[in-house]
Amino acid sequence: MILCDIGNSRYHFYYKGKIWHEKIDKEPKFDKWADGLPIYAISVQDEALERLQKVRDVTLINKYVDFDTTYQGIGVDRAVACLAAPDGVVVDAGSAITVDIMAGGIHLGGYILPGLNRYEKIYASISPKLAKSINMAVDIEALPQDTADAISYGIIASVVSIIQRSAKNKKIYFTGGDGAYFAKFFDNAMVDNILVFRGMEQIIEENNLHQKDTLF
Amino acid sequence: MILCDIGNSRYHFYYKGKIWHEKIDKEPKFDKWADGLPIYAISVQDEALERLQKVRDVTLINKYVDFDTTYQGIGVDRAVACLAAPDGVVVDAGSAITVDIMAGGIHLGGYILPGLNRYEKIYASISPKLAKSINMAVDIEALPQDTADAISYGIIASVVSIIQRSAKNKKIYFTGGDGAYFAKFFDNAMVDNILVFRGMEQIIEENNLHQKDTLF
Repeated sequence: MILCDIGNSRYHFYYKGKIWHEKIDKEPKFDKWADGLPIYAISVQDEALERLQKVRDVTLINKYVDFDTTYQGIGVDRAVACLAAPDGVVVDAGSAITVDIMAGGIHLGGYILPGLNRYEKIYASISPKLAKSINMAVDIEALPQDTADAISYGIIASVVSIIQRSAKNKKIYFTGGDGAYFAKFFDNAMVDNILVFRGMEQIIEENNLHQKDTLF
Repeated sequence: MILCDIGNSRYHFYYKGKIWHEKIDKEPKFDKWADGLPIYAISVQDEALERLQKVRDVTLINKYVDFDTTYQGIGVDRAVACLAAPDGVVVDAGSAITVDIMAGGIHLGGYILPGLNRYEKIYASISPKLAKSINMAVDIEALPQDTADAISYGIIASVVSIIQRSAKNKKIYFTGGDGAYFAKFFDNAMVDNILVFRGMEQIIEENNLHQKDTLF
């Protein structure tokens, strides 16, 4: 089976350890080998889901997501990633950075930061003098000595500091495009780019949604 | 004498304990009582300075700012505020939030965060679902349980966490429009809305720029 996580900007596909992405603004294309493989999806973007459904049959599994939380309006992708990390902090660093805290399979709450590339744009909107690219190599253990580093440090050290604040000694699972980048600032970090797909597999198995003979 | 700090978006005026602001997009107006009072200014915005000079004589004191730092390209307003707080952390929370660390009159470095109202705009640009107003009353000691709080917490707790990281036990001087708001999260905080004007007065006195008989 092929798994698909439909986000705000991209389709994220998974098949037997391989991950690939396509922009949601057009119908995704599939190679010959994918013919006949069933597709299971979660989606936070209705139009993109419809676009995928135009080219392939899709089993949407949003309704099987059984997530123990008092949080109102959590995205299904966040919930599913958390299901795969029942104890710890889940950081999904993409166009937004979501941080969720799990304990004993229960979601305790979470928060949202702008994604790295979004931060850059705000600074430029404040003053042309602040229109700088992030220096991803900035040292957050030393104080910045110029504008580009002052901005880079502000962005990166503020994200790192708030995650440290909420994680304390918990294990932190980093996923998403910038997950590996952020993980290096933490001792108790693990990078897992297929966290959401692990959660999807778990849901599919627990609910016996797969037809064993054809899918695995 | 009237003091004027010309920023990226506003003229900030000071006279005998009174502060007032005007947008920089048009010539500032002065009341009758201000006739004949000399104006001393620092400026980071050349056009706005020229606009003020059209209506009043101005002594620009940028060149008298003697600031001990290795930081390249610090704004004169940041430097002058720091001169008034030779030991401690200076946080100017306006359209950008600048944070500078001072020790024994020496500037150790600093960093820049987006201002509160700028953060709001980025979230809206990521997804319409994230287009929420900041809840300034969000409790950063509890984990958020809905999107509006998740965003508000992300913004406020990330700013608070990075300042805590760099301040440790140092005294923190908060200034700027959101300075008083942020100060309440810290034990070692002081709100001083005229920090930059204190720095300007100090420079004027140290350099004997004022004519004592007419100005004080």
